[in-house]
Amino acid sequence: MKFTFVTLFKNLVDGYFLDSILSRAIKKDILTIEYLNPRDFSDNKHFKVDDSAVGGGAGMVMNPQPLYKCLDALKKEDKEVHIIFLTPVGKPFVQSDAKRLANKSHIAFVSGRYEGIDERVIEEYSDEVFSIGDYILTGGELPSLVICDAISRNVEGVLGNSDSLSIESFETPLLEAPSFSKPQNYKNNSVPKEYLKGNHSKIRSLKIALSECKTKFFRPEQLLKYKLTQS
Amino acid sequence: MKFTFVTLFKNLVDGYFLDSILSRAIKKDILTIEYLNPRDFSDNKHFKVDDSAVGGGAGMVMNPQPLYKCLDALKKEDKEVHIIFLTPVGKPFVQSDAKRLANKSHIAFVSGRYEGIDERVIEEYSDEVFSIGDYILTGGELPSLVICDAISRNVEGVLGNSDSLSIESFETPLLEAPSFSKPQNYKNNSVPKEYLKGNHSKIRSLKIALSECKTKFFRPEQLLKYKLTQS
Repeated sequence: MKFTFVTLFKNLVDGYFLDSILSRAIKKDILTIEYLNPRDFSDNKHFKVDDSAVGGGAGMVMNPQPLYKCLDALKKEDKEVHIIFLTPVGKPFVQSDAKRLANKSHIAFVSGRYEGIDERVIEEYSDEVFSIGDYILTGGELPSLVICDAISRNVEGVLGNSDSLSIESFETPLLEAPSFSKPQNYKNNSVPKEYLKGNHSKIRSLKIALSECKTKFFRPEQLLKYKLTQS
Repeated sequence: MKFTFVTLFKNLVDGYFLDSILSRAIKKDILTIEYLNPRDFSDNKHFKVDDSAVGGGAGMVMNPQPLYKCLDALKKEDKEVHIIFLTPVGKPFVQSDAKRLANKSHIAFVSGRYEGIDERVIEEYSDEVFSIGDYILTGGELPSLVICDAISRNVEGVLGNSDSLSIESFETPLLEAPSFSKPQNYKNNSVPKEYLKGNHSKIRSLKIALSECKTKFFRPEQLLKYKLTQS
């Protein structure tokens, strides 16, 4: 699977692929990462990529010209490329999107900087527009990485033995139960005694009870959803 | 303001501070970034930091011992440090958290890897536990960076002139109106004609109408919230 990052700041992105799970997947040729810089496609003699906002407002907006040329080149090279724009004004990205998009052959992420991207570019080229959460960031580079990471771990062969695609938070409305490892006792804090007794049906019931407890505390609206699917 | 990243994979994090807004803030001494690796605090002769899950389940869990020692050292050095754990089982991080946390002097982010962190560590050391969205990632490093970035841009002096803290998505329930820059006409796509006429009251009304339209499409539940505040 191929990911192309369309960004003015490649060096904010490429460090993330230096180690751990995604680095191994790149070495095994399961994932390929490429970069395109809109600045390289600017017709402006100073390679300008932004300008003041038309209609007033603070801050600079990314111009259409460099992005049109850049994304035309990208689509010419691969008609199958699926283009995702990252902006706070988008569809909330969730786990089912990560699973669905793991079936694409090539995904491009277009990162805005400054006050955002000229809307005409988004209208013209976006296959999807995603927001990763209700907060403002300095650019689209981290959201691109977040979505790339979430998709990648659903691509076959990416996760190793230490990792797991089994029952996890967001696969059901319930948040995951707490995890414990060794030692069983550490500084007078023990793991739940039931976990040690080896009765798997009792452990499973306890884990569900703990999951409900966590969900009630952090995400009451999700617990409600869960209760509705149970009744 | 100081940020400490507690992570097994410093090199997945530090690249993000090489360029653009946060890099400038570091050079101006507004932000300081430090790293702690739990592996350096492991009493195990092979510097092991993880083990199988007690109570069954796939995957490895991060052990308490290295994290206890690491976080004790961190708190000894600075009693004021505010410790945030990143896990899908947490409070959803939102823009008001970014603004609130910009007043702290020192924030530490503890990133889990593998199947997560032994719950006893979270119980013992967390000031807050955040999730950045409803999706699963390979570790807490990207969520740490996302929250660090969102907080940083609310720290005085971090945003330059090209950037802006003015009216933005999530400051109100409405998503931001589309942005446009020059040229006014590009490949037969014009910016909205009203934007060019200079009547600021009409432009403002149009922007609100476009914001409502975007919010209705991407976040109908947010539009409802907005309508309630208006009536």
